Amino acid sequence: MQAKNRQWVLAARPDGLVKTTDFAWAEGPVPEPGPGEFLVRVHYLSLAPVMRRYMIDGAGIEKPLAFGDVMHGRGAGMVVKSNHPDFAVGDAVHGPMGWQDYKVLDGTRLTFKVRQRVAPLHTALGCLGITGFTAYIGLFDLCEPKPGQTVLVSGAAGGVGSIVGPLAKIAGCRVIGIAGGPEKCARLTSQLGYDAAIDYRNSDVAAEIAKAAPEGINIYFDNVGGPVTDAALGHLADKARVAVCGQISQYLATGELYGIRNFGQVLKKHARIEGFFVYLHADRFEEAETRMSQWVADGRLPILVDIKDGLEQMPAALRGLYLGENIGKQVVRVAPDPW
Amino acid sequence: MQAKNRQWVLAARPDGLVKTTDFAWAEGPVPEPGPGEFLVRVHYLSLAPVMRRYMIDGAGIEKPLAFGDVMHGRGAGMVVKSNHPDFAVGDAVHGPMGWQDYKVLDGTRLTFKVRQRVAPLHTALGCLGITGFTAYIGLFDLCEPKPGQTVLVSGAAGGVGSIVGPLAKIAGCRVIGIAGGPEKCARLTSQLGYDAAIDYRNSDVAAEIAKAAPEGINIYFDNVGGPVTDAALGHLADKARVAVCGQISQYLATGELYGIRNFGQVLKKHARIEGFFVYLHADRFEEAETRMSQWVADGRLPILVDIKDGLEQMPAALRGLYLGENIGKQVVRVAPDPW
Repeated sequence: MQAKNRQWVLAARPDGLVKTTDFAWAEGPVPEPGPGEFLVRVHYLSLAPVMRRYMIDGAGIEKPLAFGDVMHGRGAGMVVKSNHPDFAVGDAVHGPMGWQDYKVLDGTRLTFKVRQRVAPLHTALGCLGITGFTAYIGLFDLCEPKPGQTVLVSGAAGGVGSIVGPLAKIAGCRVIGIAGGPEKCARLTSQLGYDAAIDYRNSDVAAEIAKAAPEGINIYFDNVGGPVTDAALGHLADKARVAVCGQISQYLATGELYGIRNFGQVLKKHARIEGFFVYLHADRFEEAETRMSQWVADGRLPILVDIKDGLEQMPAALRGLYLGENIGKQVVRVAPDPW
Repeated sequence: MQAKNRQWVLAARPDGLVKTTDFAWAEGPVPEPGPGEFLVRVHYLSLAPVMRRYMIDGAGIEKPLAFGDVMHGRGAGMVVKSNHPDFAVGDAVHGPMGWQDYKVLDGTRLTFKVRQRVAPLHTALGCLGITGFTAYIGLFDLCEPKPGQTVLVSGAAGGVGSIVGPLAKIAGCRVIGIAGGPEKCARLTSQLGYDAAIDYRNSDVAAEIAKAAPEGINIYFDNVGGPVTDAALGHLADKARVAVCGQISQYLATGELYGIRNFGQVLKKHARIEGFFVYLHADRFEEAETRMSQWVADGRLPILVDIKDGLEQMPAALRGLYLGENIGKQVVRVAPDPW
């Protein structure tokens, strides 16, 4: 029986929370790579909060999707056919696969070889892929952590946040994580090495930050925005650095966005706030992969991943991100791990 | 008749808008400089929005004032007695004079010689003093303007804003200023070289910014905070830089501060927002003074100053700042210009 290429295509633009009916299932033939191209069998697909924007405006990475287009998204897989001099059958790659079993690529756009073999292939979508590079570059390049400083991470149990915490510990910092619910908070301290955890659903976040960081926050790594970020800005130390990586609390806002009352603290504390887009720092990916692979091998960088099984799960997995269902990086296994 | 030292001392902490009754008049003998000290006759005193904070918490520059202490503030004057090897009688200086006729200094703290003679001494409190250095460093060092870029300045007719505009024109930028009222707006374009002016009191600021900068703002120099800043953040171009220099609209807030709804644009536009404190950049003052003196001499940097006469005017002049009464840098002449 000939292999099929199963796909999820865009069926509707999201109105509020992403619904599984925003996508439609499709099946087609496995594509053939042309000259200079190669075919990838997708093993894992990534889920990230930014994806809702792909469905609307492309988020500056991809062209906005039309109805019937295969949904955008990164994946990791193995080269199974190749007409490309630099990509051989058996190479592992991560790149813009889309929500499907097979993808033809030419190696030019946001496509990277997986050079490590210290961890399962799904880490090429997690700590050893763009998610991890985001944590690495956001923390080390934008925030310049120094030993003894206090780092606060929002969305601390999410894909990026679950990597920022351990990286900040490696940098010698005291690290406080904010997450939703007691289970995630327990994981922050037990599995990820966070020094303290704040449950934003069941506490006064500003009061808890003040308690956990009486001398203020030197670095705030923001994945969520909204009231949590407002509370964080209210407790900055002098010359604090803020990396704005995500604003998941605001992506679903349909009415007015939340207003940040502590904006003026940027002046009072001589702080720097920087929004960043990891693909603008691609020259830093190789260092990030090399150093983080070593830390994974050393056991200093724990892998926290939430794996759902089957391409069929993609729409529900994306929806779950916005409901805070995942602990660690959310991926879907489309085919068994290749090594 | 022996000279007296007239002074304004703190009588009450401000509750809302600064009142003239927050200060009390005092008179005493002219102090004598001790070993390593020198005596300055104050000719001009500066008014700046940050001063209200001196009355409350010292604003990180000075110790908080006690009742009866001479009000803090910068001034420019002439050395009239000296026991200091580096400051001679006849030198012009600007430094922390306080609201009084005479001040003994030792040259160590925030005290600088006036090295230029191209403009009246009051410019040592304006474009050729800390106010000008603030504009220079905030614009050139933090925002890195490039020819052809669009710069938006709030508080554009104020002390700092009236200098940022001309500097941005010198940098080859298109410059849009926001100020309150038709008179100030007219001055922006007629006297300061602004390409466009927006009257925040009589227009929809967001709509006017969109009209004046259809491709977005590359640089926003913020002196005011609040809704004007919210509108500006809503119209950033990709990789915009925001220098936060003042938040005058929020200094008098007694209830909740204004909430910035467009905070998330920092992520969407990969922007950088930086609050700064000019005294942390003192190593840049000499370059700023040298280059700006040349631009004043060349006629490229217009001097916009609002001079009130007499030390008696200080409380009213400070109050007027928060009411937006001044056009350009507000100073008070305590004694005639010395040259």
